[in-house]
Amino acid sequence: MDDALMSLENLITQIGLLDEAAMAAARARQDVLTKPRGSLGRLESLSIQLAGITGDPQPQIQHKVIVTMAGDHGVVAQGISAYPQEVTPQMVANFLHGGAAINVLARHIGARVVVVDMGVAAQMEPHPDLVDKKIAPGTEDIAQGPAMSREQAIQALLAGAEVVAAELNRGLDILGTGDMGIGNTTPSAAIAVAITGRSPAEVVGRGTGLDDAGLSRKIVAVQHALTMNRPDPADALDVLTKVGGFEIGGLAGAMLAAAAHRRPVVVDGFISTAAAMIAVGVAPQARAYLIPAHRSQERGHRLMLDWLGLEPLLDLDLRLGEGTGAAFGISLAEAACKILSEMATFGEAGVSEKESD
Amino acid sequence: MDDALMSLENLITQIGLLDEAAMAAARARQDVLTKPRGSLGRLESLSIQLAGITGDPQPQIQHKVIVTMAGDHGVVAQGISAYPQEVTPQMVANFLHGGAAINVLARHIGARVVVVDMGVAAQMEPHPDLVDKKIAPGTEDIAQGPAMSREQAIQALLAGAEVVAAELNRGLDILGTGDMGIGNTTPSAAIAVAITGRSPAEVVGRGTGLDDAGLSRKIVAVQHALTMNRPDPADALDVLTKVGGFEIGGLAGAMLAAAAHRRPVVVDGFISTAAAMIAVGVAPQARAYLIPAHRSQERGHRLMLDWLGLEPLLDLDLRLGEGTGAAFGISLAEAACKILSEMATFGEAGVSEKESD
Repeated sequence: MDDALMSLENLITQIGLLDEAAMAAARARQDVLTKPRGSLGRLESLSIQLAGITGDPQPQIQHKVIVTMAGDHGVVAQGISAYPQEVTPQMVANFLHGGAAINVLARHIGARVVVVDMGVAAQMEPHPDLVDKKIAPGTEDIAQGPAMSREQAIQALLAGAEVVAAELNRGLDILGTGDMGIGNTTPSAAIAVAITGRSPAEVVGRGTGLDDAGLSRKIVAVQHALTMNRPDPADALDVLTKVGGFEIGGLAGAMLAAAAHRRPVVVDGFISTAAAMIAVGVAPQARAYLIPAHRSQERGHRLMLDWLGLEPLLDLDLRLGEGTGAAFGISLAEAACKILSEMATFGEAGVSEKESD
Repeated sequence: MDDALMSLENLITQIGLLDEAAMAAARARQDVLTKPRGSLGRLESLSIQLAGITGDPQPQIQHKVIVTMAGDHGVVAQGISAYPQEVTPQMVANFLHGGAAINVLARHIGARVVVVDMGVAAQMEPHPDLVDKKIAPGTEDIAQGPAMSREQAIQALLAGAEVVAAELNRGLDILGTGDMGIGNTTPSAAIAVAITGRSPAEVVGRGTGLDDAGLSRKIVAVQHALTMNRPDPADALDVLTKVGGFEIGGLAGAMLAAAAHRRPVVVDGFISTAAAMIAVGVAPQARAYLIPAHRSQERGHRLMLDWLGLEPLLDLDLRLGEGTGAAFGISLAEAACKILSEMATFGEAGVSEKESD
């Protein structure tokens, strides 16, 4: 086993089970706070999950981080995106200038955005806030062969883990995932098709706004990606290698690292969920650390969430990516923790409890 | 027409139509911001609604206010609540001490909470933060007769409007509604049954956690309320009089006043939605000012939202009231406004637009 693979194996073995004692304590506390039991619904279950993840019966979320990873995709040659590839570096620049949706929403919830070049097909200007983890300037065209080598796939996972390790040093209590990459709903759909075994037509959607002809080309491209590459659904690393993307691999690695450090991961939409499928394929125990932010408008997202066994918190018809849905999920997670820590108990507030129970 | 009724008529006539020009400008701006058109889904439509409400193509939300109104209900004599009536004043005290869920969530989103005694069945200690608008110490038992007099119903609406008028002086850019009142899902269900014509069994739910026997008693109580009082579904004031509550009337009045002053109203759950049905019954043009925060777990809420023609933003299995769901809705509305104001356009950011459209 080479060093990179050994590092990945090490990372995976660090991911532990949720802390049952912390969860039991959080559950017990929810039941004595001044509200009918269970009346805060998903906020209550979320707070219990967060207790289990962190090992703290009253978890605190202060440092909120959204990692937005960018990469390009050779499959754009198949005419599967409504936007030209140059938009990827242009949007990275927009992130760095604070003008994109994710910047606005991160400011709204008090999170910092970390922008990572995982494989943009352009030379990016160095910028103090741009993390350079470029594996290659874009993947190969998955409709014609593998997206990357297996070594590159491992490298992408480890690069994502390194980004999280660096952010942990700056303070990271919760990780939100985000993506940018023209064409990246195509590899994400290919990952979902490979792993779930559903048909491309069930999974492939219009991405940033394809017309009918573009949608047909995209379905064909995903079909070709599967028949050309024959990814092994039982080997998530093979799926990433054959039909994935660098930012998808980076996000999967970031999820694994967060889980290894007992930090919750708020999963954004379609692309982040494809990354989550890779992460959970590589390390099934990582699933318990994932909080699905929202159901994307992109077709197939529901099937992917179902495969993961995750029920999203929100359904706001979003289909932008960048981590925009994750921002709202992070805010809900923070609210859930505050409920647990800041609400008065029946005893403290002198409020009568339920008459019969 | 007496003075009170004239005041109410004045209030109603002040509620104007949404500003179409501001909505068109907001829509046009959404289409040139650096994201695929429509990709922010409900945030985009929300921002356009907010532009129409405020008359500002780039509305700003700074002062966020959640008005939580409390009242008691004679119908608790029918054994329709899991909690004793003394919990209403106890929870009001909890609100004033900052220990309730609504306090935690209001702090989370940066809103202030205004607590109003509309009709608590106890003498409340004076408190600088408690607004005293008590109409009477609880309603009469609706299973045996009308909840209140028509004069009291008008008085409740006007009192709610006065609360908003006072808060406008302190700064109010968006209103969230909240309630507290042991037993108040029963009059709310009765209002829904009266106005929609659905059966009590379709509308009545378990409230704070009734068992099966309690649920049966509650359905019977609502049935009695309807057969004893025969509220006129075409006369919302009659419905409020016969089967309503003081906090429900107060909330309806607060909604009318906010709409009259072109302020958005974020409607919380089951009780607030019953109040919204009264407000819209009294002034149909108020509907356009309402933003439904969430779908409550309480049975019948969906039917009520459908009658109003409102699609809730969130579904988090909440069933607490107090304005807890409204808090999240307010935060989404604020985010929607920030998207409109703070995002860069394609031109500003030098990002290429879609290739074909």
